[in-house]
Amino acid sequence: MPRQVDHKARRDQIAEALLDIVASQGLEAISVRAVAAQAGVSAGRIQHYFANKDELLAYAIEYQDWLVQQRWNEQTWPEGEPTPREALRWVLLETIPRDDRRRREWLVGVAYLIRMLANPKLRALYVDGLPRLYQLLADLVRMAQEAGDIAPDRDPDMEAELLFGLADSQGPPVVLGLRTPEQATAAIDYYLDRLFQ
Amino acid sequence: MPRQVDHKARRDQIAEALLDIVASQGLEAISVRAVAAQAGVSAGRIQHYFANKDELLAYAIEYQDWLVQQRWNEQTWPEGEPTPREALRWVLLETIPRDDRRRREWLVGVAYLIRMLANPKLRALYVDGLPRLYQLLADLVRMAQEAGDIAPDRDPDMEAELLFGLADSQGPPVVLGLRTPEQATAAIDYYLDRLFQ
Repeated sequence: MPRQVDHKARRDQIAEALLDIVASQGLEAISVRAVAAQAGVSAGRIQHYFANKDELLAYAIEYQDWLVQQRWNEQTWPEGEPTPREALRWVLLETIPRDDRRRREWLVGVAYLIRMLANPKLRALYVDGLPRLYQLLADLVRMAQEAGDIAPDRDPDMEAELLFGLADSQGPPVVLGLRTPEQATAAIDYYLDRLFQ
Repeated sequence: MPRQVDHKARRDQIAEALLDIVASQGLEAISVRAVAAQAGVSAGRIQHYFANKDELLAYAIEYQDWLVQQRWNEQTWPEGEPTPREALRWVLLETIPRDDRRRREWLVGVAYLIRMLANPKLRALYVDGLPRLYQLLADLVRMAQEAGDIAPDRDPDMEAELLFGLADSQGPPVVLGLRTPEQATAAIDYYLDRLFQ
């Protein structure tokens, strides 16, 4: 029986190389030759799988989204279900570039932003994801209010904005080394302490 | 008397062209040829003023910083001095990409970020500016506390983080058209209403 080629694994290997280059040097460093060198494959291999640079870029960001989704799906809680506060904290800390993996995700998100504006397919990834994230945070605040853990006069949508903004604005100082991931985490915990009663 | 060439004006014209391209297509679209075409000058003119692409990129971001600084310097207040709340609101709204000028500034900041990480001269622009902005916001919160307009038990540094995060996180939804500048402004006013007593 002939050996089956795992096409997804080969595409993912190329996407991995592309994401490494984008996070360290930006989209301007992307060429078939550069990605081939980083992945340790021939340029022909890349051209076999991707008709052009746009296809390669779209695959890579969808692959990254899939990696993030896998991590969310695989997250387990020792006590069974997390409390709303535990879930909120987990979601917020996921957005902080606190290790190599999340740092790469964060920088790739930044690098793709301008291209997303002009490219409807890429834009949809961002446009779909952001309101869903706000919605999730607001729902968790509501659940905590129903459990009596957050005061009922807090506006859940406004709290979702504040929480997301606080977490999101940790990114630049953390990637620039102005602030440690521990300090970013402490800022989030400080606000959660104030929000929860 | 021979006509004096205004070298700063010529450099600024080139920087303007570069910033327009970066904001719409990202750093990857930058070449001497592309900037020359956008500026309506010869490639030779650009090479006369800038030895290489790095010099051109550094000049353009410093020029943008200078434009922002000019706007801050020229801001006047009909009543003389602004109240701490007016000053806070003004600073926060400056960061929102709410018109063509501020949208370009915002997108250029995003586009330069990865390059800044690896380039000490560019990095210094960001590394110097960010803590100064947090400091300014915290000082304004303190002034409002001294005037009795914000409760004394609020932590000024934490409030500065929340305010900056809230303003900063308006950027992506506004540039993507998910939210209008008016909605972003309303989110900031909502929180200022809650912070001020």
